Amino acid sequence: MKAAILGYGTVGSGVYEILTKNEAVIAAKAGEAVEVKYVLDLRDFPGDPVEKVLVHDYEIIAADPEIAIVIEVMGGVKPAYEFVKRALLAGKNVCTSNKELVAKHGAELLAIAKEQKVNFYFEASVGGGIPIIRPLQECLTADVYEEISGILNGTTNYILTRMYNEGADFDGVLKEAQACGYAERNPAADIEGHDAGRKIAILASLAEGKKVAFEDVTVEGITAISSTDIQYAKALGAKIKLIASAKWENGSLFMMVAPKLITAANPLYSIDDVVNAVKVRGNMLGDVMFSGRGAGKLPTASAVVSDVVAAAKHAKENTGFFWSEEVRRPESTDTMVNRFLVRVDADKKAKAEAVFGAGKEVSIGLADEFAFVTEPMQESVFAAKAAELGELRGRIRAELV
Amino acid sequence: MKAAILGYGTVGSGVYEILTKNEAVIAAKAGEAVEVKYVLDLRDFPGDPVEKVLVHDYEIIAADPEIAIVIEVMGGVKPAYEFVKRALLAGKNVCTSNKELVAKHGAELLAIAKEQKVNFYFEASVGGGIPIIRPLQECLTADVYEEISGILNGTTNYILTRMYNEGADFDGVLKEAQACGYAERNPAADIEGHDAGRKIAILASLAEGKKVAFEDVTVEGITAISSTDIQYAKALGAKIKLIASAKWENGSLFMMVAPKLITAANPLYSIDDVVNAVKVRGNMLGDVMFSGRGAGKLPTASAVVSDVVAAAKHAKENTGFFWSEEVRRPESTDTMVNRFLVRVDADKKAKAEAVFGAGKEVSIGLADEFAFVTEPMQESVFAAKAAELGELRGRIRAELV
Repeated sequence: MKAAILGYGTVGSGVYEILTKNEAVIAAKAGEAVEVKYVLDLRDFPGDPVEKVLVHDYEIIAADPEIAIVIEVMGGVKPAYEFVKRALLAGKNVCTSNKELVAKHGAELLAIAKEQKVNFYFEASVGGGIPIIRPLQECLTADVYEEISGILNGTTNYILTRMYNEGADFDGVLKEAQACGYAERNPAADIEGHDAGRKIAILASLAEGKKVAFEDVTVEGITAISSTDIQYAKALGAKIKLIASAKWENGSLFMMVAPKLITAANPLYSIDDVVNAVKVRGNMLGDVMFSGRGAGKLPTASAVVSDVVAAAKHAKENTGFFWSEEVRRPESTDTMVNRFLVRVDADKKAKAEAVFGAGKEVSIGLADEFAFVTEPMQESVFAAKAAELGELRGRIRAELV
Repeated sequence: MKAAILGYGTVGSGVYEILTKNEAVIAAKAGEAVEVKYVLDLRDFPGDPVEKVLVHDYEIIAADPEIAIVIEVMGGVKPAYEFVKRALLAGKNVCTSNKELVAKHGAELLAIAKEQKVNFYFEASVGGGIPIIRPLQECLTADVYEEISGILNGTTNYILTRMYNEGADFDGVLKEAQACGYAERNPAADIEGHDAGRKIAILASLAEGKKVAFEDVTVEGITAISSTDIQYAKALGAKIKLIASAKWENGSLFMMVAPKLITAANPLYSIDDVVNAVKVRGNMLGDVMFSGRGAGKLPTASAVVSDVVAAAKHAKENTGFFWSEEVRRPESTDTMVNRFLVRVDADKKAKAEAVFGAGKEVSIGLADEFAFVTEPMQESVFAAKAAELGELRGRIRAELV
């Protein structure tokens, strides 16, 4: 079985390494050896063993009928989308780690794969090395989903964990995370919550069997979280985590990515550093959780290669995916119910109590500040009350028990 | 698609309930509706909706060519083994939650299923509702396994959690657990570690692709754990958990079920009450963990029904299992390396230090007792030193960092 890798960056070189190092076990599980015939990259890698299979032109791969599996690990939609679509239309299987591509074009590419009797696999697009796409498709099939929620972005979890452990402020930790490679030079996609938003859109699509668009997910990042917020979290016995969630209530779907105060009652509380986790609640199953390294060269590449094994086993039959092109729109988040930690100037205490009622006061000993946790209320009700109160020092959603 | 359920006990009635309640989603995922044509049980259930499909004689099911899926949830080897084997030989798919059957006859039954072009599935046999069998088979296929370890028995984890939280002693907690149905009237299989031993034998067999016999697993239960031990655990910042593990080192396989002191550095530390968890370490992937309800009617039945969905999708093709009848023997545990918490009479302190060297002393303020944690050493070396020391008040393996 011959494969081509598109992109020799972090994940691509990891895929190449695993296919070489774990050759024997992969051949045993795939039913035959998987050989990398080409690696596509615009760059040269003098002295790297990849040199002997390196090509600079996608047409070589497209024109080679021997290539049964195309491994797309370039990232981004352009030109990945075109390359992947052409590969599928040419009857080649495709495995990808590209969440942007999957979130945007997953349903369409799955439909082409089905028509062509090949497969489009994307285990690595969510949760890095953690198996979650295939378990949702193949394992949790007896249940009606009630909730999928998780910590889906390693960079922000690393930042929030360091802020919690060290009492440090966001900007400083971000700079250090960039210096040691845990955050990108342009970190917007991570810290603004877009990366987590794309991933939860993929998971919700699989759960629904319909297309849930990233653009329809309400997303809030962690840039407004301060060391003062972390102190309040500690006072409440909580941590602040960037939680991506899809919830189903009476047939309605609610989706949100936002920082949230959670306590140890939520198993996501113990997920620290660059670890990711996905918690799935089924109507029969209750909660199950999948956790592990959500990013990094080898964990992500391991997930890609597990797709390669599946593609080799099923190279000429479509194994089916429960994800049609029909669009499923989540409800407006206005009607979602949440509690909030609210921080205001101390002189607004009376007004805050008048507007919100006597909430649960929280103090970290700041004389000029009044903070409290509201009762559960709809987002739109909260927004109206907050507007009435005027400027807030901060507000964070809170899941407290 | 017609199915028969063997056994209308806890799990069997759960399977019947899920197949009824979640009929629509199951039909969508299975590709067609799954109808329960028979439920086999020796008992009658007057007034229960199951009455209309209840039969008392297995021959009715065996003789009905319409039955494509047999769901075995009776437990025990007799007569389950005979029923399952006959069903497979007759070209019927089988889904089971029966760990004893799978640990003992899994490899043989898989071989028959393959020959008959049907499937023998057993997701519910390990970890209750937690997907672990299929992820090991289908997802973690790019890695060489280095370790599988877990908390695989809900009853013992419930008991140890209550002992930890309440400072209570083993016997009292066991009695209460029996009273509220968390422990069986005859709890030996749980508290002696046999249940966890069967489960880790199944997981190791799947990881090896060979038969690892339960009888070859070194098993120690939790009956000797006292409230005093729990106090030492707390003094060490640890919890005592019944850990079932398979470890691969330089081609050697080591297997053990035993209570162990673990700290928060091990993600199993936060797994409390009846929750189960399996941690898998791959050479490329690092650690991933799967957790959830490891027992209980509906979680276990949910796993069985996910197998039913898979069996319906692949009713006439064997989807393959990496588990041959070749036997793989674990190494003697003599050469396993562990640290130990050792408790002796206070007047043995000097001798203990002479025999073991100056270990790390631990005190919970008992005047008549001396306790310490040894350096890591081989089990056989520890056993020899312990024999030299004479009678111990207790010893527990310790994973401390």
